[in-house]
Order: sequence, then structure tokens, then C-alpha cells
Amino acid sequence: MNVGFIGLGHMGKAIATNLLRAGHQLSVWNRSSGPAAELVSLGATLLTDPAAAARTDVLFTMLADDGAHRAVLLDQAVLGRATRGLIHVNLATISVALARELAAAAAAHGVRYVAAPVFGRPEVAQAGKLNIVAAGDCESLARIEPLLAAIGQKTWRVPGPPESANAVKLAGNFMIASAIEAMGEAAALSEAHGVGARQFLEILTQTLFASPVYQVYGGLIAERRYAPAGFKLRLGLKDVRLALEAGEEKNVALPLGSLLRDHFIEALAGGQAEQDWSAIAELSRRRAALP
Amino acid sequence: MNVGFIGLGHMGKAIATNLLRAGHQLSVWNRSSGPAAELVSLGATLLTDPAAAARTDVLFTMLADDGAHRAVLLDQAVLGRATRGLIHVNLATISVALARELAAAAAAHGVRYVAAPVFGRPEVAQAGKLNIVAAGDCESLARIEPLLAAIGQKTWRVPGPPESANAVKLAGNFMIASAIEAMGEAAALSEAHGVGARQFLEILTQTLFASPVYQVYGGLIAERRYAPAGFKLRLGLKDVRLALEAGEEKNVALPLGSLLRDHFIEALAGGQAEQDWSAIAELSRRRAALP
Amino acid sequence: MNVGFIGLGHMGKAIATNLLRAGHQLSVWNRSSGPAAELVSLGATLLTDPAAAARTDVLFTMLADDGAHRAVLLDQAVLGRATRGLIHVNLATISVALARELAAAAAAHGVRYVAAPVFGRPEVAQAGKLNIVAAGDCESLARIEPLLAAIGQKTWRVPGPPESANAVKLAGNFMIASAIEAMGEAAALSEAHGVGARQFLEILTQTLFASPVYQVYGGLIAERRYAPAGFKLRLGLKDVRLALEAGEEKNVALPLGSLLRDHFIEALAGGQAEQDWSAIAELSRRRAALP
Amino acid sequence: MNVGFIGLGHMGKAIATNLLRAGHQLSVWNRSSGPAAELVSLGATLLTDPAAAARTDVLFTMLADDGAHRAVLLDQAVLGRATRGLIHVNLATISVALARELAAAAAAHGVRYVAAPVFGRPEVAQAGKLNIVAAGDCESLARIEPLLAAIGQKTWRVPGPPESANAVKLAGNFMIASAIEAMGEAAALSEAHGVGARQFLEILTQTLFASPVYQVYGGLIAERRYAPAGFKLRLGLKDVRLALEAGEEKNVALPLGSLLRDHFIEALAGGQAEQDWSAIAELSRRRAALP
Repeated sequence: MNVGFIGLGHMGKAIATNLLRAGHQLSVWNRSSGPAAELVSLGATLLTDPAAAARTDVLFTMLADDGAHRAVLLDQAVLGRATRGLIHVNLATISVALARELAAAAAAHGVRYVAAPVFGRPEVAQAGKLNIVAAGDCESLARIEPLLAAIGQKTWRVPGPPESANAVKLAGNFMIASAIEAMGEAAALSEAHGVGARQFLEILTQTLFASPVYQVYGGLIAERRYAPAGFKLRLGLKDVRLALEAGEEKNVALPLGSLLRDHFIEALAGGQAEQDWSAIAELSRRRAALP
Repeated sequence: MNVGFIGLGHMGKAIATNLLRAGHQLSVWNRSSGPAAELVSLGATLLTDPAAAARTDVLFTMLADDGAHRAVLLDQAVLGRATRGLIHVNLATISVALARELAAAAAAHGVRYVAAPVFGRPEVAQAGKLNIVAAGDCESLARIEPLLAAIGQKTWRVPGPPESANAVKLAGNFMIASAIEAMGEAAALSEAHGVGARQFLEILTQTLFASPVYQVYGGLIAERRYAPAGFKLRLGLKDVRLALEAGEEKNVALPLGSLLRDHFIEALAGGQAEQDWSAIAELSRRRAALP
Repeated sequence: MNVGFIGLGHMGKAIATNLLRAGHQLSVWNRSSGPAAELVSLGATLLTDPAAAARTDVLFTMLADDGAHRAVLLDQAVLGRATRGLIHVNLATISVALARELAAAAAAHGVRYVAAPVFGRPEVAQAGKLNIVAAGDCESLARIEPLLAAIGQKTWRVPGPPESANAVKLAGNFMIASAIEAMGEAAALSEAHGVGARQFLEILTQTLFASPVYQVYGGLIAERRYAPAGFKLRLGLKDVRLALEAGEEKNVALPLGSLLRDHFIEALAGGQAEQDWSAIAELSRRRAALP
Repeated sequence: MNVGFIGLGHMGKAIATNLLRAGHQLSVWNRSSGPAAELVSLGATLLTDPAAAARTDVLFTMLADDGAHRAVLLDQAVLGRATRGLIHVNLATISVALARELAAAAAAHGVRYVAAPVFGRPEVAQAGKLNIVAAGDCESLARIEPLLAAIGQKTWRVPGPPESANAVKLAGNFMIASAIEAMGEAAALSEAHGVGARQFLEILTQTLFASPVYQVYGGLIAERRYAPAGFKLRLGLKDVRLALEAGEEKNVALPLGSLLRDHFIEALAGGQAEQDWSAIAELSRRRAALP
């Protein structure tokens, strides 16, 4: 298929590479030109205008946040010049409200919108092992499934309008942040009683909590290794905020989400914005004046 | 070895059975006589006085809570009549403060005290697959290791005085309760946006959170099946309270623990005391007025 | 002085009336025409276009929320047609971010911007007894002081750019909501121990807490009289949210604000949006299953 | 009346002095002898045994905490040697559970128990202006009213068993701590936006919050003057804990109380145990990294 791709950050580049490898024709656009060069060397076409990426069969986008989507997709009227029948597949973690807005913008231009946010850190994206949560019209989902199969280990289709997939993604990220917080507090408690974080987290993450999230983040917390960041703390705050907003829209309070938001803010005040988001575990140590 | 065993609830009976099967001589005592009968049929000796259980090489105890330990062990002066050199192995989840007190009482009578709280629900105990966290003097730990191997899949030795094992156990239970809370809030968010708890939790617990705790409790929450209780909500409150107290003793605040405590209390007010502790997930639904 | 006035809700009408009574020439505009009629009968001039209100010496605005400010002031380009040297005095409780934006919009059109949010419920506004927190350039503040004196008992000038007055106002409303929450929880505790909310709150609000906020809201909570609303619960949520956002902008976490936000959301889910914001006290009763 | 008095701390001494001044015959006992000397110089009789204080018409006690009550009153069997018909008036802030226990101990020895906890700092006690919350049998309350009138400005009788007065007192102290927390967070928000805590708190505590609690503690927070302590932070934690326990006993969750408990613990970890309890306001500054 003829595929356009906008947004070549760590995640986007890894995903685009897998689409190329699967034999699709790929034209790519990125705000800065560096990351595109590598893809071009693998056979991709470089675009100088994001709108050109919409003159394809399927447009993938993987931009950083709500603001970037507005700047690149809405303000530059990318969809206004789209091929009739284009399917826009948005892989990014965005607000439920923006997803709704993008779906409406697509509909206004005869474009189909699929929300397909992904779970997985960059190395998982490189391995083509992402878990993809997808929502949109049935026909579009069927058509793009070969593309999704090239980038993920499984596509989890959820019912409802596209933004429901974003709600699932935000709820999932909230669960990851909650796991980090729980490990941080529990490790501080254990350490204060003489059993260090490393040993404590080893016991728990090799038994009851033997899962990727706990093992990856438990390891970072045990080693207090928060740089380089796999996912930055300030982006963690953004996602928790989006989860809270998605909740507020439906009158769902998330008290644990509120607690997380406060801790992320405190960590930002402490200068930890660019650390890995698992660094909120340090707050529990700091508050308890652990050495 | 000649082993005494006090406390034959669901957990205690399963553990005692495995000790018998491993070929140890077991004499048992329980407050009510029912559970003991079954063990006697397997070869155990029935005791009519708890103190007799201390006239052995190793005394295991698995009582319900701090109160039961005081009533049975301290008030009845069980240790006062103990064999010289007895090792008291306490498997129960008790407060750090009581563990310290029991260790002191043991020392006063020439008895060695090992704290060996266990992770695992009754079916895990039956299978001899518990994870055991043990702290005590090195020699005692070495001597009882064959016994522990008969009841668990692994013994995790932690440094420090015996109560440090209890701190680890309480911190672990706090992490389980935190996972339940996070799933409850996240599932409510997802459901409000059109993706039911069952599908949402399936996605998360088969991928990023594919671990025993998430799969067991995620399943209960998805099915809203809170009876019969594997672990009662009122006991969950007790353990969270013990974790908070263990924290307060060392000036470690556990804000997520405080949130859990409040939710458990609200659930008790709502008449859920005897439900499984995963039923606190229902609060998130109720507060959001989900149907 | 020649004064324009936009926004004649409960608060706006009361304030505009006091400006008229103090002898100022007043031209008024409101989205719906009802409230203006009464002021016209007192001598005000009715405008059919909000921009006409800016062709005066001083423009007062008292609109409901951020959205109304954008719709009326920014989208309709009111300032673009303003008299050169106009002073725009904004009495409303708005976000710090919007205040900054309005000040910039004013500067771009040679207009001076003063933020002058007020403390006081409608009956206080009628009595001309508001407390006004004002920030802006010194000269403008001096010029409008006679106008402010006509509507308030005192003007509290604060340093910094105009939005600093909005931060003070939001922090103040956060304190009121906190007082309501504290009374709600404390009264539930007292009631559960046999001393009803009415007596409990009487004791406290006539002694240590003998102040307007505690007596007004303590009275409403004691009588459980939440309608008609003096200030609606959904507006309370809005203000708490604005306080949290003002905090986040400066990395100031407000854990008590987060708790309030969650309780307001839960109250909204329970159908209390149009009740007085003191109705969040009912949550404490409901959660404890008090009769 | 012939009055015994046990417990001559800052509060006790001030109260005992007022009883003496009102013309009552007073015999006093205190763990350390210093404070008693001053009262003896005013006409009091010094006792060397606390039980002697119960050989009177009315026994007042004002001890520090639950532990001191157990050590002095229960362990030394003071009530066992009491005059038949003695009225024991307990002025201290103790747990609801201990109040119930003391009432039962009194009943067992034919003694009547009145709980009469007081609101007011030491200078208020000296001025005889305490607010007293009293619960007990009607006849006893009537008999001791002249004594209470000598030490307080008003006696607030509440219904129910004696411990209901303790619940009111704990709920009141919880409200004070909540006010401190709200001021701390709000002042940090204001300060981050350029309006210092001093000016912010002046505005609020002279208007909407013009009450003793807000003015006294607002003043301390504005000046960051936390020593010498009027009421120590570690005692503040104790009282919040007692309020939480009183709530838990009746299934009343106090989420704001939980938040306070966590902040007090963090302050203790930060070395602030002996500061005034209003010092928890510093946490808000510290977390936001305010200068």
C-alpha cells in the first residue's frame, strides 16, 4: 500500500522502519529532517510538505502531543488536500477531546479516522512487538490490519468511536504510573525497615508481580537509574493529566490519578522533568529523609 | 523433625498438610477442633494445649491477627514451657511491632524467633508453592530450610531482625491493594468511555501486566465476583493499616496507603466487609454512578 | 465617569447598580436583555453591541467563565474599537492564563488592563461590601479607586502583573472549598459519635471559627440546605480546577485541591451540579452511610 | 468544693490556678514537682501520691496523652481508692476508645466520669476563657458547672456517653489542622504568582476568614515563626491519628485527615517534630521549591 507517515521521533521512526521492511511504499515527513534521512536510505520518499503525506492510501501520524497535532494537522490543513478515501491512522497518545476533533475533521474531508495508540517503549517498537489498541469503522480496521500486523504483535480492537481507544491508552498509562508509585512507596517502607529497594523489588517482581511493567520499572527504581529517560517525567505528567481530563468529562474521579499528578508536579519542581517518569519513586525516599 | 503447629485456618491447614507429606512428625493445635481432625487422619497428633506444641524442635504458628497472637502465644505463656533451643517460625502477617515483641519474648525464654510470612492464596499453599520471606538468625534459617522447602517454592532471606520480613510482607500486600485500586479506577474510566471493564482488563493483564496478581484480581474485578472471598476486605483494611503503622514508626508516609485505607473504610460502611478485598474496585464505579 | 459594563448576572447587576447609585454614567450590555431593563429604569443606557461599552472611560466586565470572555471580548474584537486610554477592569474569576491573554490583548490596543476579582456573594455585592483584590498599573488603579469604592468595602492592591490578583482570588476560593470539606468531614465524624452536625458546627463556628465563611457555609451544611445555590457546585469545580492549573503552571502541587476536585466530580456524578457548592459535605455522610 | 488535680503542664497549671482563684480547695499532684510549687504558693496542697487526689469531691485530670492516662490513672489504680461519689472530670484530649475505658473504670468503682476536653491555647486557659465541651450524666454536669465556669467562657454540653465530647474535640482539632493545611497550600500558590504569604494571608484572615484560628495560625505561617511551639507538631500528628481512629471505629473515612497525617509524618521526617504544628505549611513551600 501507498503509505504516508508524519512524525519520526523515537517511536515513529521505529514504526516507519517496520512498515518499509514489510514492503510498503512509504513517503515520510518530519518537522526536522535528520530522522527522515535514515528512512530514505531504506527506500522511503522524503516529503517537504506534510500535506503530501495525505495524498496516499493510508496516513500514519505519530506526533508528540496535542499541540503538535494542532500545529501540523489542523493548522496546516493537511486533511483538506487528502486523497478521497484516505484512512488516517493516529498512533499517538492524545486527549480524548482532540481525538474526537480529529475524527470530525477527517469526516468533514471524506477521510476515515482510526485511533490506534500503542503500548510499548522504543525497543519494543523496533522489534515490531507493540500492542495496538484500535477503534474506528470496521472496514478501515480490516484494510489496515496488514499494516498494523507489521508493527505490532497484536491489535486489540475496541468498540465505540475512535476516541475510546485513546481512553483505553490513557487508562493503561495511568496504571503504569500507579505501579511506579506503589513500588516507590513500598520500597521506601521496606528500606526504612532494613531491606533495601533492590532486594525488595527483586522479590516482588519475580513472583506476584512478574510482568514487563514491574520488571522494567522495578529495575530502574532499584538502581535509581533515571537517565537517559525511556519516557520523560514531564510527558508522564501530561498523560496523567489527560487521563484526569478524560475522567472529568464523564464524571469519573480518579483519586489515585490526582495523587500521581501532585507527585509529578513536585518532581518537576525538584528539577526532574527530563528524567524517566519512574523517578517519581525518589519522592518517597526524599519525603522520608532516607539516606 | 519434630514439629508443632498452631493455627489451622485455610492457610495453616494447607501448610501443615505439606509438612506431614514431607515426612515430618507433626503435632497440631487449633482453637476450634474441626480442621485438626483431617490432619490427624493424615498422621498428625492432636494437642489439647497450645503449649504442648512448643515442646518440639520447631514451632510453626499461623494465626489470624495480632490479637490472636497475644491471646494464644503471650497470654497463655506458650513460650514459657518451650523446649530449650526451640525455633519459633511465625508464618503470619502481623505488625512489625508485634513481631519485635514476639522476638523479645522468645529470647527471654531461650527460644529462637524466625519471621517467615508467606505470599500466596490458599490454593497456592496447597500446591506447596508459597513464596516465603524469612528473617532471623542464620543458623535457625539454615535448620528450618528443609521445612520451608516443603511448603514453598522459594525462601527469600532478608537481612535485619525478624520484623524486617514482616515489613516486606506488609509492603507487598500494600502493592497488591494498590494494583487493585489502580485497576478499579482505570476500568471505570475505560467503561465510561465505552470499553467495558472485562475487555479493558483483558488487554492490560495479558500484556504489560501479565502477572499473577493482575490476572487473578483483574479477573475478579472484570466479573464483579467478590464472593466467596479469597481474602476478606476487612482483613485487607487491617493489612493496609499495619503497613501505615510500620511506615509511621520510621517517618515514611505512604500517601497511596492512606488513599487505600479511606477506600476500604468506605467499602466497610457500604457493607462489603466480608467480600473479597478486590471489591474496593466497586467504589470507583459507584462514585462515578456507572450503571 | 463614563462607564461601560458588560455582564449582568447576579453579581454584575448588583455591582452595576451601585455604580449607578454613586452617580456614574453607565452604559450596559448583556447577552440576554432581561437584567438590563432594571438598570435602564435606574438610568443606565442600554447597548446593543458589546463593543460600544468600550467606547467609554472605564469598561467593567463580569462574565461567567473563560469561555464567555473569549466569546464576548476576544471573538467580537471589543477591544479593537475601544476608546484610546480606556481602562478595562475585569471583576470576574478567571484563569491566570486568560488574565495574561486579556492583558496582552488590551496592551495591543492601547487599553489598560486591571484585574479586580471580588470576594462576596450576591447579597454582599448588593450592599456594596465586596472585598476587591486589584492588580494593574498604579495610575489606572488610582483612577478607578472611586469606582471600586462604590462597590466594595475595601480594595486590596497586590503587586505584580494583573493576573496575580486572579491567583489570589483562586487561592481564596480554594480556601473556602477547603473549609467546606473540613466541616463536612468533621461533622460526619461528630455525628457518627452521637453529636449531630447542627450542634457540632454551632460550637465550632461560634468560637474558634467565628468568621463569615464558616458561619455561612456551616449553617447551610447543618441544615443540609443546598438549594437555591448561592454558588453552584459545578462552578466550584471550575474554580478548583483553575486553582490547580495556576499551581501546575508554577510547579505548585495542591494536594488538598486535588482532593476537592475529586469530591466535586463525584458530587457531579451524583447529580448535584446545580446545588450550592457546600453540598460536597453530603459526600462525607454518604460515604459513611450515615442515615 | 474539695478538688483534686492531676497534671500540671502548661494547660493544667493555668486551669488549676483559676480554680484556686475561684476559691476552691485544691490538692495537686504532678509527675515532676516543679510546676506544683507555684500552685502551693497560691494555696494549693501538694500531694505525693496521685491516688490522694481522688479522695476529694471532684478530680480534674489534664494529662498529656493516652499513655500517661494509662500509667497514672489505670496502672496506679487511682480510682480504686477514690471517695465514693467522686466525679472525675477529664479535660484532656484523648482517644474515644480510652475515654470509654476510663468511663467504665470509673463506673466499676462508683465514680462518675465526665469528659470535658477544652479548646484554647495556654494563654486562653490563663485568661479563663476556654471553650469546654462536656458530656456525662446530667447531675454531675450540673454539680461541676461552677468549677467549669471558673476556667472557661462557656460549657458546651453534648449528648451521649462521655466519649462523644472527645469525638467533638478531635473533630475540632482536625478542623484546625485542615485550616493550617489550606492556608499553607494557598499561600504557596499565591507566592508563586508574586503575592507573598504575608499579604495574601492578611487579605484572607481580615475578611472572609476573620476568626481566631485563621488569625493566630495565619500570623505564624506569614512570619514562618514556628518556635517556640504553642502546640507541637508531633502532638498534632497524634490528634489527627486519634481523629482517624475515631472515624475508622464508625466507618467514617476522613480523606482530608489522611492527607494531614501524611504531611505531619513528612514534617517529622524533616526534623520538625518540636516546631509548632502550623509548620506543616512549610511542606507546601518546600515541595514547590519556593525560595
